[in-house]
Amino acid sequence: MNVLAIGAHPDDIEVFCAGTLLKYKQQGHNIFIALTTSGNIGSNEYESREAIAAQREQEQLDAAKLMGAEVRFLRFDDQGLQDTPELRRAIINAIRWANPDVILVNYPEDPSTDHAITGKVVSQVMLSIPGKLIPADEPPIDKNPSLFYYGTPVGIGFLPEVYVDITDVYELKKEALAMHTSQFNWMDVYQTHNLLNILDITDKFRGLQAGCEYAEAFRAFRLHGYMPNFKLLP
Amino acid sequence: MNVLAIGAHPDDIEVFCAGTLLKYKQQGHNIFIALTTSGNIGSNEYESREAIAAQREQEQLDAAKLMGAEVRFLRFDDQGLQDTPELRRAIINAIRWANPDVILVNYPEDPSTDHAITGKVVSQVMLSIPGKLIPADEPPIDKNPSLFYYGTPVGIGFLPEVYVDITDVYELKKEALAMHTSQFNWMDVYQTHNLLNILDITDKFRGLQAGCEYAEAFRAFRLHGYMPNFKLLP
Amino acid sequence: MNVLAIGAHPDDIEVFCAGTLLKYKQQGHNIFIALTTSGNIGSNEYESREAIAAQREQEQLDAAKLMGAEVRFLRFDDQGLQDTPELRRAIINAIRWANPDVILVNYPEDPSTDHAITGKVVSQVMLSIPGKLIPADEPPIDKNPSLFYYGTPVGIGFLPEVYVDITDVYELKKEALAMHTSQFNWMDVYQTHNLLNILDITDKFRGLQAGCEYAEAFRAFRLHGYMPNFKLLP
Amino acid sequence: MNVLAIGAHPDDIEVFCAGTLLKYKQQGHNIFIALTTSGNIGSNEYESREAIAAQREQEQLDAAKLMGAEVRFLRFDDQGLQDTPELRRAIINAIRWANPDVILVNYPEDPSTDHAITGKVVSQVMLSIPGKLIPADEPPIDKNPSLFYYGTPVGIGFLPEVYVDITDVYELKKEALAMHTSQFNWMDVYQTHNLLNILDITDKFRGLQAGCEYAEAFRAFRLHGYMPNFKLLP
Amino acid sequence: MNVLAIGAHPDDIEVFCAGTLLKYKQQGHNIFIALTTSGNIGSNEYESREAIAAQREQEQLDAAKLMGAEVRFLRFDDQGLQDTPELRRAIINAIRWANPDVILVNYPEDPSTDHAITGKVVSQVMLSIPGKLIPADEPPIDKNPSLFYYGTPVGIGFLPEVYVDITDVYELKKEALAMHTSQFNWMDVYQTHNLLNILDITDKFRGLQAGCEYAEAFRAFRLHGYMPNFKLLP
Amino acid sequence: MNVLAIGAHPDDIEVFCAGTLLKYKQQGHNIFIALTTSGNIGSNEYESREAIAAQREQEQLDAAKLMGAEVRFLRFDDQGLQDTPELRRAIINAIRWANPDVILVNYPEDPSTDHAITGKVVSQVMLSIPGKLIPADEPPIDKNPSLFYYGTPVGIGFLPEVYVDITDVYELKKEALAMHTSQFNWMDVYQTHNLLNILDITDKFRGLQAGCEYAEAFRAFRLHGYMPNFKLLP
Repeated sequence: MNVLAIGAHPDDIEVFCAGTLLKYKQQGHNIFIALTTSGNIGSNEYESREAIAAQREQEQLDAAKLMGAEVRFLRFDDQGLQDTPELRRAIINAIRWANPDVILVNYPEDPSTDHAITGKVVSQVMLSIPGKLIPADEPPIDKNPSLFYYGTPVGIGFLPEVYVDITDVYELKKEALAMHTSQFNWMDVYQTHNLLNILDITDKFRGLQAGCEYAEAFRAFRLHGYMPNFKLLP
Repeated sequence: MNVLAIGAHPDDIEVFCAGTLLKYKQQGHNIFIALTTSGNIGSNEYESREAIAAQREQEQLDAAKLMGAEVRFLRFDDQGLQDTPELRRAIINAIRWANPDVILVNYPEDPSTDHAITGKVVSQVMLSIPGKLIPADEPPIDKNPSLFYYGTPVGIGFLPEVYVDITDVYELKKEALAMHTSQFNWMDVYQTHNLLNILDITDKFRGLQAGCEYAEAFRAFRLHGYMPNFKLLP
Repeated sequence: MNVLAIGAHPDDIEVFCAGTLLKYKQQGHNIFIALTTSGNIGSNEYESREAIAAQREQEQLDAAKLMGAEVRFLRFDDQGLQDTPELRRAIINAIRWANPDVILVNYPEDPSTDHAITGKVVSQVMLSIPGKLIPADEPPIDKNPSLFYYGTPVGIGFLPEVYVDITDVYELKKEALAMHTSQFNWMDVYQTHNLLNILDITDKFRGLQAGCEYAEAFRAFRLHGYMPNFKLLP
Repeated sequence: MNVLAIGAHPDDIEVFCAGTLLKYKQQGHNIFIALTTSGNIGSNEYESREAIAAQREQEQLDAAKLMGAEVRFLRFDDQGLQDTPELRRAIINAIRWANPDVILVNYPEDPSTDHAITGKVVSQVMLSIPGKLIPADEPPIDKNPSLFYYGTPVGIGFLPEVYVDITDVYELKKEALAMHTSQFNWMDVYQTHNLLNILDITDKFRGLQAGCEYAEAFRAFRLHGYMPNFKLLP
Repeated sequence: MNVLAIGAHPDDIEVFCAGTLLKYKQQGHNIFIALTTSGNIGSNEYESREAIAAQREQEQLDAAKLMGAEVRFLRFDDQGLQDTPELRRAIINAIRWANPDVILVNYPEDPSTDHAITGKVVSQVMLSIPGKLIPADEPPIDKNPSLFYYGTPVGIGFLPEVYVDITDVYELKKEALAMHTSQFNWMDVYQTHNLLNILDITDKFRGLQAGCEYAEAFRAFRLHGYMPNFKLLP
Repeated sequence: MNVLAIGAHPDDIEVFCAGTLLKYKQQGHNIFIALTTSGNIGSNEYESREAIAAQREQEQLDAAKLMGAEVRFLRFDDQGLQDTPELRRAIINAIRWANPDVILVNYPEDPSTDHAITGKVVSQVMLSIPGKLIPADEPPIDKNPSLFYYGTPVGIGFLPEVYVDITDVYELKKEALAMHTSQFNWMDVYQTHNLLNILDITDKFRGLQAGCEYAEAFRAFRLHGYMPNFKLLP
């Protein structure tokens, strides 16, 4: 099986669903990551967008290597992501590239903009996956993937439908997140906790809700022809 | 695995979740049915409550025999079901009797009263299953069953979370429902369709949503210590 | 056509739906009022429950006379109304008595208890109207009335679905409310506005929303066999 | 009275609201259809967008002729519809062209993108109908139409507020849908049922809910100055 | 100012809102605790209801002493709490006893029954506080307290509206909870985490959401005459 | 403290939140107003967009002068506002210009388009306030303002979370609104009440709900790092 995790920024995957990806990997499935932005703007640590992007893409590649995932960068500007034909095309390409049975992505109701747009556009293009006349560069695919939304930052406005126990891969998830070294100072500008700390508190809380030590939480997207199959979750 | 379906009236099980029960049976699980009422009041076809109840219990036993299910009648008055200590006790007894891994029951937001009360009280007693001092007649059990709500009459106010494909057991489900012969005239008093017709339209519609010929639809109950495991659905 | 308005207290009808009743009356329909309590407890102006009830029932009769409505008092204690078999029976009786095509009642999600219970129990007994074995004193009826919920006190938590323009009967509605003289001092204990003032502000606001001078607002109850017919509203 | 049905694709009208249109026609009203796209992309049966569009527009004209409706094609690309100034202008034009008392359109929460965008933009331009400086090519109109949303594909995520009984025009509706011959193979790529089958199951289910044989279901849009008048429904 | 925290079981206060109580205490306010049950049934550690209740009441008194709170036990049976006239009367008494400006109580939508009933009945009796004819043993009071709901077990189904930073009293809260020694073994029957662990994970998670180290989360109850004043929160 | 009110049109501030601004002013805080459009299109009273905009900006300046507020015009076309990079940039500029501790803005779920877009984009750019590489012309600021949504036109679809008593500044608010003389004829095209009348009815209704004579109503936006502090409301 192929599993594609799509996120708005480098570190979204590691924060929100890397545990689930690692469970899939453990079960012998192929895992893919696509990022709509390389987080090139939302940082005050660097002097140029290019410098940030270069740093963050490298961090993402390091994290992906650790997890055994392939990565595709869509390279839109962050903090300004919008629902454009170009973004839709890039996301269709990414989905066709991964040929997934399961897609994990940000929640469209996430109060954080880039997350919401990423989640919304992925949902919007589901019907475009099989069409040969769709504006896209990758050939159509004929799978009907299940789409699950992972949580929002620190769980605000998110009531989970289903959980995945990630206890036995949690340490590796944490290591993968730790690859995003550039994010540890920056986040302090507007947040009270550092990223590893956020991870620990959130995943423990979801674990507590789910009845295990560490968990990740999801909601499902429902669309005619693409109804979620909960049994595909690890 | 043991699966317990609880309903408010004889025929609720056959209308709303018998397909899922039959799938469980097919997979080798034990199936149990408990009814909070024997539908002894909500009918104009008979002269006494006793006569109706006798007729309907026999119909339920016939349906259960066809499905290979055990039945327990709680025998509260229908059309007047209320959340009382007696009802809670009887439901705790029924759950302990079946010792279930999965419970299926009416939806607490069902606009039909007896259904709503049945769904609500089953949800309310989940935490009382293991307690040895709980007012009850059956001994405590130590399972943490997953609880799923089946649909409402003709789907009003019900947005499904998950579906079960019942195509290959649909004919048997229909036969089981057909055992409830007393319900075919009576329902015409206030409904425009007969019961088999309702079944056919509803299950085809749920099948259409789910991407199969016939389906049943469910929502999950979420409670600390009793979180739903979607993988237990057939 | 027969229209039945059910309320928790004397003055509920006049506050929430008397305009709509008067429109029905204007169109030649018969209008009925039933009250679950005579407001015998929730007042500090009188020394005994009996004294309050006597006063308030007389006020209600005066208001009803002005409107041309028949009244039935169910006489449960207010501020303590509960969903009991006795209340259900009394409400079934009241509905059968009025033999209504349309029922108007408090909203079951009203944060005020007596209102919520009244709205909930009326909804709960809809399926019991036609049953001859149902515990009741009035004979079964075979209508399938549409049920609409009128607003909550000062509109808290209430998003209307549909409005009735009551501009041309507003003055009469106000006169009817003014009959409830005992309520004008008492309400001041916990409210900042007197009752006529509340009426004026609320009905003007609903009128503003609806695009007329004065309006009343409603939501519909949906139940298989008793689906709301919006065209029955005046 | 003029009634305008707006849809995202040829066949949306026939699937979701043609019965209601035919009821209006039966009552002597004028009916109009506007389509935001000609479905020129979301199909694998043809080699070019132009070929599909030509075929599908002809099918739509045939269906409209059968129903006695006028048609306006807005000709945006499907599977990529976005909320742009051009789409808003074209929709304003279409509304002004039809000068409607009632508008029927896709639901803005439809999980299918083109549907959602069409429903959202129609809602968004309501306030622009009367403005003479609004960017548009048709002259302002001064009606305040009621706007109703018809259902989503196979009813996913849609809880109806109101129903229209279409039993006596259902056969004609089905014939109109059958004009869309190009959609019968294509839909099989990702759906398990063909279009006439979907129609039959869905309209029977809505009929079952409404208490008739076949029905269509709607929700209302609420906006100051454009509040829905349920009595305008047939 | 007087602040009253009402809970369903000994330890509810300490788990859900003791931090907020301690903040009030710190600010010089008087704090009161009332419990609808003494948790006399939902435990398998003891042989009789009386033994459990005695033990748990002592634990609660120890915790309250530590916090500087007065306690009132209403002593209904737990795991079977129902909305009865007796419970309403006891809760009215408790509120009049504390004469509170702020009330904190369980959430009426809590999936745990005793919690839900406690939260619902407290909300239901708000209008009965000032009435002199209300069935009660304590004299009427004339305050209009703000009512806030604290969270559900491990936050299931609870989206907070407002948070209280409890960082500087967290250690004392934890000590107070630790007084409930009887709850540490029992909870293990159906839960994966012990109570102090649950506290730590939940309060850290709410702190993370709120932007501090430890927090408690609340929703407000809205009722005419008793609207919540958020500024009364510490 | 600095408080910034953002609106879609001249008069939005005066209709929806000027009372709250005036309370802030009264308390010695600085108040700022930013408008995404100058209402240059949605009017039939003038012959050109420029003429309308000039008139309405002058009216807004007069109103602001009366209130003691500074104003910034973003000058996008109204009735056609869309979520573009230019709008986002202009809003980021406006926020950085005012350097606010509290932001008040239209509700993103407002059924009126320009309002919804304004509310949505303000919410979307919150995370962009501190970033030095963000496309913007004003320098980054390091405050984490609380964001509150004020009501929708005539309150449709809006359930308030919190109220501000504006009784003692209501007359001044009304005077400020009266400065928008151009809006008094135009609104009559599609509305039944003039603007001062609307103000009076709405603010009295919100006052009635809140327990005072006149009030304004708000909901809060919740985002990690920018959680609302209700105590900052006047």
